[in-house]
Amino acid sequence: MRIGFIGLGGMGQGIAANILKAGHGVIAWNRSPAPVEALAAQGATPAEKPEDALQADAVFSMLANDAAVHEVGLDSVLLDRAAKGLVHVNMATVSIAFAREIAAAHARHGLGYVAAPVFGRPDAAAAGKLTIVAAGAPDALAKVEPILKAIGAKYAVVGSEPAQANLFKITGNFMIASAIETMGEAAALLKKGGVDPKVFFDVMTTANFSAPIYQIYGKIIGDEAYDKAGFKLSLGYKDAGLTLAAAKEMEASLPLASVVHDHFVEAMAKGWSEKDWASLALLAAHRAGLKG
Amino acid sequence: MRIGFIGLGGMGQGIAANILKAGHGVIAWNRSPAPVEALAAQGATPAEKPEDALQADAVFSMLANDAAVHEVGLDSVLLDRAAKGLVHVNMATVSIAFAREIAAAHARHGLGYVAAPVFGRPDAAAAGKLTIVAAGAPDALAKVEPILKAIGAKYAVVGSEPAQANLFKITGNFMIASAIETMGEAAALLKKGGVDPKVFFDVMTTANFSAPIYQIYGKIIGDEAYDKAGFKLSLGYKDAGLTLAAAKEMEASLPLASVVHDHFVEAMAKGWSEKDWASLALLAAHRAGLKG
Amino acid sequence: MRIGFIGLGGMGQGIAANILKAGHGVIAWNRSPAPVEALAAQGATPAEKPEDALQADAVFSMLANDAAVHEVGLDSVLLDRAAKGLVHVNMATVSIAFAREIAAAHARHGLGYVAAPVFGRPDAAAAGKLTIVAAGAPDALAKVEPILKAIGAKYAVVGSEPAQANLFKITGNFMIASAIETMGEAAALLKKGGVDPKVFFDVMTTANFSAPIYQIYGKIIGDEAYDKAGFKLSLGYKDAGLTLAAAKEMEASLPLASVVHDHFVEAMAKGWSEKDWASLALLAAHRAGLKG
Amino acid sequence: MRIGFIGLGGMGQGIAANILKAGHGVIAWNRSPAPVEALAAQGATPAEKPEDALQADAVFSMLANDAAVHEVGLDSVLLDRAAKGLVHVNMATVSIAFAREIAAAHARHGLGYVAAPVFGRPDAAAAGKLTIVAAGAPDALAKVEPILKAIGAKYAVVGSEPAQANLFKITGNFMIASAIETMGEAAALLKKGGVDPKVFFDVMTTANFSAPIYQIYGKIIGDEAYDKAGFKLSLGYKDAGLTLAAAKEMEASLPLASVVHDHFVEAMAKGWSEKDWASLALLAAHRAGLKG
Repeated sequence: MRIGFIGLGGMGQGIAANILKAGHGVIAWNRSPAPVEALAAQGATPAEKPEDALQADAVFSMLANDAAVHEVGLDSVLLDRAAKGLVHVNMATVSIAFAREIAAAHARHGLGYVAAPVFGRPDAAAAGKLTIVAAGAPDALAKVEPILKAIGAKYAVVGSEPAQANLFKITGNFMIASAIETMGEAAALLKKGGVDPKVFFDVMTTANFSAPIYQIYGKIIGDEAYDKAGFKLSLGYKDAGLTLAAAKEMEASLPLASVVHDHFVEAMAKGWSEKDWASLALLAAHRAGLKG
Repeated sequence: MRIGFIGLGGMGQGIAANILKAGHGVIAWNRSPAPVEALAAQGATPAEKPEDALQADAVFSMLANDAAVHEVGLDSVLLDRAAKGLVHVNMATVSIAFAREIAAAHARHGLGYVAAPVFGRPDAAAAGKLTIVAAGAPDALAKVEPILKAIGAKYAVVGSEPAQANLFKITGNFMIASAIETMGEAAALLKKGGVDPKVFFDVMTTANFSAPIYQIYGKIIGDEAYDKAGFKLSLGYKDAGLTLAAAKEMEASLPLASVVHDHFVEAMAKGWSEKDWASLALLAAHRAGLKG
Repeated sequence: MRIGFIGLGGMGQGIAANILKAGHGVIAWNRSPAPVEALAAQGATPAEKPEDALQADAVFSMLANDAAVHEVGLDSVLLDRAAKGLVHVNMATVSIAFAREIAAAHARHGLGYVAAPVFGRPDAAAAGKLTIVAAGAPDALAKVEPILKAIGAKYAVVGSEPAQANLFKITGNFMIASAIETMGEAAALLKKGGVDPKVFFDVMTTANFSAPIYQIYGKIIGDEAYDKAGFKLSLGYKDAGLTLAAAKEMEASLPLASVVHDHFVEAMAKGWSEKDWASLALLAAHRAGLKG
Repeated sequence: MRIGFIGLGGMGQGIAANILKAGHGVIAWNRSPAPVEALAAQGATPAEKPEDALQADAVFSMLANDAAVHEVGLDSVLLDRAAKGLVHVNMATVSIAFAREIAAAHARHGLGYVAAPVFGRPDAAAAGKLTIVAAGAPDALAKVEPILKAIGAKYAVVGSEPAQANLFKITGNFMIASAIETMGEAAALLKKGGVDPKVFFDVMTTANFSAPIYQIYGKIIGDEAYDKAGFKLSLGYKDAGLTLAAAKEMEASLPLASVVHDHFVEAMAKGWSEKDWASLALLAAHRAGLKG
């Protein structure tokens, strides 16, 4: 198949490279040219304008947020110039409200639209180890499914409305943020009682909580290694905002998500936007009088 | 060694049987006689009175809560009648304040005292697969360590003050309660958006959240199987109370624990004390207008 | 002075009439014609188009929310057609973000801009008993101050940036919502203990809490009179959203506001949008198992 | 009538003096002798032992908390030595659980028991301006009612079970704590937006919030005068604990009370126990990044 690709950030680069490796042609566009050249060296065709990437069987986009998708025009003007029958696979984590707007815009233009957000970091993207959750009309999904399976280790269809995949992703992010907050509160409580949080996380993550999320963040919190951000607090804050917006949209109150969001606001007020989002745990230490 | 054992409930039975299997003599006492007879058939010596179990190298006790420990007298009168040099291993989940009182009482009587609460259910106790966290004076710990290792799959020393092991256990319970609450809120949000929570938990628990806690409770919540209680809501409520009491004792505020405790209060008010404590998720569904 | 007036809803009618009574000429516009006719009978000049109201010394607008202000064009196109030197007095409760956008638009057009939201209901507006909080540049404020004093019983300048008056108003609304939630939780607790909330509110509102907010809402909650909405729950929900948006904008976490907002979400999910917003107290009764 | 009086702290002194002024004989006991002597100078009879104060028609007690009542023995041994037909009027703010225990102890001894906690500070006690809420059996209440009316400006019977008056008082304290927290969050939000909280409280407390609680605490918060404690944070923390214990006892979740209690825990961890409890507002300022 001929696949357009828009957005070659850390995640997009790895994904696009894997589409190439799977034997498909890729027409790639990015705001800055360097990643396009790098991908061209692996066999991709550079696109001069975003719309060139829409002259294909499908276009994949991996952009940062609602605003980035809107700026490129993938919810509006760009769709006027898309090849007939094109299916757009949007891998960005966007809000539910905007997901619905984008879906409606594609429907008006008679284009296929699949939301396919992913779980995983750039290294997982490069290694083809992403978890991909997709939602959209069955015929659109069927068309792009081989590509999605080629770029992810795990692929699940979670609904027929594209926004449902975004809801799934946002809910998954909420699970992670809530786990981090819990670990942070646990660590502060233990420290006040003279128990080493490292011992606690060692024990728990080889027993009931033997999952990557607890292992990764248990280590960061145990080491108090907040300054080297694997995932910036400001991004976690953005995601926490998407969670509350989804809760509002769906009329489902999420008290834990509200508490976590409040803590993000507080951390932002402290000027911690560039720290790792695990510094929710640092805030718990402050609340316990351990710092500051 | 000669080991006394007090409290042959679901947990105690399995643990005492494993002490016997490890080649030690066991003098067993229980409020009701049936479990004592069953253990005697496996080679234990029945104790007529609780104090008979204290004529040994060490006595293990596994009682339900603060009140049960107090009623038997293990924080007071019974200690007058203990064999010289006895080490008491208290496996119960008790409050921090009471843990300190018991420790002080043992010190006044010149007796050894180790707190060794466990993670795991009766089947894990019977199979010798418990996770045991112990705290106490090094000499007391050294004496009973071979037994603790014999009855658990995982053994960790977490402090030199007995109450530290209780703090560890209480914090572990908070982690579980918070995870259940999070899953419940997640499930309600997804359902309002037409995404099947079962699919969500399937995906998450084979990826970032591939831990027993999420697998076990994800299934219960996905199946809405709240009526057959693996762990009663009233017990989870008790544990949530211990968490807040510990937070107060340590002066470490735990906002998530407060929210979870409030939800337990609400569930009790709804008459759900006998349901599984995963019905925190049922409450989240109510809040979202999905029920009631 | 010649004063334009846009938006003759329940509040606007009373205010515009008081401007007339104070001896000023009023050019009035409203989406639906009836209120314009009514005001014309009191001496106002009907405006055919909104922009006619901007051919004056000052224009007052009293519209429902951000969207209504935007639709009329008071943040954009309408400003192109304003009389030179016009001062716009915006009495609507709008979000901080939008307040800043409107202010910037007026600055670009060289027009004066004052935000002057009010506390009070339509009967207070008609009686000239509103509390008016105003913010803006001193010269713009000076020009319209005589009018603002004529239509309110209490007038305070709270800042030189218009958005500061909106922040004041939003914060005031948060105070009210928090008071209602508190009364609701108090009433549920008392009822569970067999104490009549009416007696409680009678005592408290003649002592420490002898303020209109507690007297008005104490009575509604005591009487459980939620169905006849003095102020709809859906409007309270909107205001609670403005509070959280302001908290985000200012980076000041407001834990109580988050809890109250969650309760509004839950009440909306129960289908209570048309009830009085005091039905936050009904929700507290539900949580206590008193209802449903 | 002959009235015993136990507990001559700041509150008790004023109340006992007013009983004397109303023409009754007072037999007074206090742990430290100085206040007894002072009252004797006004005509009271000093009691050598607490039980001497129980040789009367009624005994009033005004002690600090559950522990103080228990230490004096007013829930146990002292009751053995009471005059036949004695009615005990307990003015202390005690927990619901303890209130029920005391009531049961009096019933077992055939003594009358009235709970009559008060709203007001020492100056109000001295001036006879307290608000008194009483609960108990009608005959016991009837006997002491003339005294209660003599020492308070406002008197209300709120139930026939003594604990109901304590519930009323605890709920009233919750209302105050919630109002302070709300004002604190409001002040932090306003400050971040450049609006002076003093102006805000000036406007609000002469309009919708024209009640003593808002006037008093609005001033303290506006002035940031937290170091001269009118009511110590540690006492507010104790009361917040009584609120949560009552919520548990009554099975009525109080989300706002939980948030406020968490903030008290945090303030205690910061070492603020001796500050005024209005420093909940200082904590809100910290959360907003305005301090520390």
